[in-house]
Amino acid sequence: MAPVAGVRLASGAAGIRYQDRTDLVLAAFAPGTRVAGAFTSNKCPGAPVDWCREALAGGVARGLVVNAGNANVFTGRAGIAATTGTAAAAAALLGCPPSEVFLASTGVIGEVLPYARITDALPALHEALSEDGWAGAARGIMTTDTFPKGAMRTARIGDVEVRIQGIAKGSGMIAPDMATMLCFVATDAALPAPVLQALLAGGVRRSFNRTTVDSDTSTSDMVLLFATGAAGNAPVHDPSHPGLDAFARALDAVLLDLALLVVRDGEGAGKLIRIDVTGAASDASAQTVALSVANSPLVKTAIAGEDANWGRIVMAVGKSGEPADRDRLSVGIGGTWMAREGSVVPGYDEAPVVAHVKGFEVAIAIDLGLGSGTGTAWTCDLTHGYIDINGSYRS
Amino acid sequence: MAPVAGVRLASGAAGIRYQDRTDLVLAAFAPGTRVAGAFTSNKCPGAPVDWCREALAGGVARGLVVNAGNANVFTGRAGIAATTGTAAAAAALLGCPPSEVFLASTGVIGEVLPYARITDALPALHEALSEDGWAGAARGIMTTDTFPKGAMRTARIGDVEVRIQGIAKGSGMIAPDMATMLCFVATDAALPAPVLQALLAGGVRRSFNRTTVDSDTSTSDMVLLFATGAAGNAPVHDPSHPGLDAFARALDAVLLDLALLVVRDGEGAGKLIRIDVTGAASDASAQTVALSVANSPLVKTAIAGEDANWGRIVMAVGKSGEPADRDRLSVGIGGTWMAREGSVVPGYDEAPVVAHVKGFEVAIAIDLGLGSGTGTAWTCDLTHGYIDINGSYRS
Repeated sequence: MAPVAGVRLASGAAGIRYQDRTDLVLAAFAPGTRVAGAFTSNKCPGAPVDWCREALAGGVARGLVVNAGNANVFTGRAGIAATTGTAAAAAALLGCPPSEVFLASTGVIGEVLPYARITDALPALHEALSEDGWAGAARGIMTTDTFPKGAMRTARIGDVEVRIQGIAKGSGMIAPDMATMLCFVATDAALPAPVLQALLAGGVRRSFNRTTVDSDTSTSDMVLLFATGAAGNAPVHDPSHPGLDAFARALDAVLLDLALLVVRDGEGAGKLIRIDVTGAASDASAQTVALSVANSPLVKTAIAGEDANWGRIVMAVGKSGEPADRDRLSVGIGGTWMAREGSVVPGYDEAPVVAHVKGFEVAIAIDLGLGSGTGTAWTCDLTHGYIDINGSYRS
Repeated sequence: MAPVAGVRLASGAAGIRYQDRTDLVLAAFAPGTRVAGAFTSNKCPGAPVDWCREALAGGVARGLVVNAGNANVFTGRAGIAATTGTAAAAAALLGCPPSEVFLASTGVIGEVLPYARITDALPALHEALSEDGWAGAARGIMTTDTFPKGAMRTARIGDVEVRIQGIAKGSGMIAPDMATMLCFVATDAALPAPVLQALLAGGVRRSFNRTTVDSDTSTSDMVLLFATGAAGNAPVHDPSHPGLDAFARALDAVLLDLALLVVRDGEGAGKLIRIDVTGAASDASAQTVALSVANSPLVKTAIAGEDANWGRIVMAVGKSGEPADRDRLSVGIGGTWMAREGSVVPGYDEAPVVAHVKGFEVAIAIDLGLGSGTGTAWTCDLTHGYIDINGSYRS
């Protein structure tokens, strides 16, 4: 990971829950940095989500504080004290109002966050801020993740090349618990907050909102996009301006890279599964069908067992509640159509299908034969590893 | 299980898929038997579901044929040939029109049902019909079930005591795949089909529709209720007539017994979990919240690990999308409130909670603090056993 002009980061060990590892990240943004955000749809969000939603109204960001190990969710007044206290401490160091400091917490739900450990640790992190702090930050925000996650693209806005770089964490409670999804992306492009917000909303819809590990939606999910403006491109005020097409595509690619890294690192995951739905009554309907298949425990266990069990895919299409006509439905795996128009394809060649499902990436195709709606979802298989990770006592 | 006047059953081995066990059940009902049914909401139902929906229009039943091992789902024209041929063969034996024969199949999806094995076996079953065939029938319809399931109640209609007795099968693909849910209940009460249908619809709503094993909805689910009239009670034509209250309660009890037997036998299940929601904006909202918790893999794995992880319960309430206010939400397990009004109950006694979650039955209480809506759902825990059963190759 390379520097993004206007962004400095540092990570350190505050000892909030984990021992012998970093668990706290501070980022500082150049004056003038604009910000956009997307948050969990969970009705019981954490205190940091509430804080960021409010801070976003200003559209301006100078700092970000992220801790791992404690989500500061369902912590009542103590949770608000933690966000207020952390933001105030970071703001004093960074020389900005607290409302320009963004906060994220990830880890156990329902335990009071001992935020004095954060505010005690922040001065040393502030001293250590560096443009080269990205890789350390990607590690500092991990919970049950097995590897740090980062992605980068460049694009041109006019004649100016800009960089878009992000980090993410997440493994379980992804449709987006205990291992919530956080994603922080920064660019040196100069773009106003409403433009960033529009581009981010579309990109999240095409990436994180199409992925699921376990159908459980975290109370802490957030994606934040910071634009420092250090690249000095001419400002663009319309998110659909053709001059932003390349930037929008690059942002989408960074978000999708990060989303798929989260799915690949899904708790216990052994395989990455892509579900493409065509021929639906509408795009929205296709997306619902794709997610119904992606969230089906019986489809996910079949793939874990390397069984091309298309009957379970038919079941998951039917349970979605979306328009479907059994007698027009086709299902394929790895490019081979196994079922067409209501029954098995007589004498289809099973060998390539068997070989395909033994691989790491499994592609499922579903054609509903009704209309022109399309949708795509990504998930992972459901394995003993998921039970091991989530069925053990909290340590 | 005792006889129900007017009902005779027989079971046998047709060798459809399983070896060395019974897999075919024939039931014969006395002339005049009325019938009601409830079916899967899956949009890709099996051919037997289509057959029964049509046959139900007549309101009259003389026979029932059930096979295990092959669900006759997604089998196109071959599936229709199987239902037509099976019904014709049974009708010839029973001396009734084919439209008075009900059909159910359970097992693998997408394989053509070799129904000649059924029609070849039926004459011997017809010879063996007996009022004492209930226990054998309960075994003959099993797939991945680990035990046969039956329930019985008596009730009075006027001065006449009537019996209500049922059998069920089901273990996975319960929200109601491969191990679909079938339930057959018979009574000797004399009741018209519309009354039976109304009572059955309410009873199913309060039982099977409140239970989930894995959130996957089968393509074969059905509950059929047969009333032979042999008890000779005076007819009642209004399902809400007070004279039917005792019967309705007894029917509800039989259905709930059978539904909970299915959940107890959920694939890999080690615990039965009951979720009671109170204080919701409406009963419908409470039911949605209860099922959201019941379907959460993270809640179910936590219970498997005997972890009273109320934070995951908060998450599952929030992801339901129903009205919820984090700061009014209370969560309890085993009668101990652990979280109240937005944060953990300070110093709550963890000992009884720990003891409770080590038991077989786990009770979760959720109060939303918003209104007077209530709802209840039952599920089982999510264990390595589920992965073993569903992640292995189809044999």
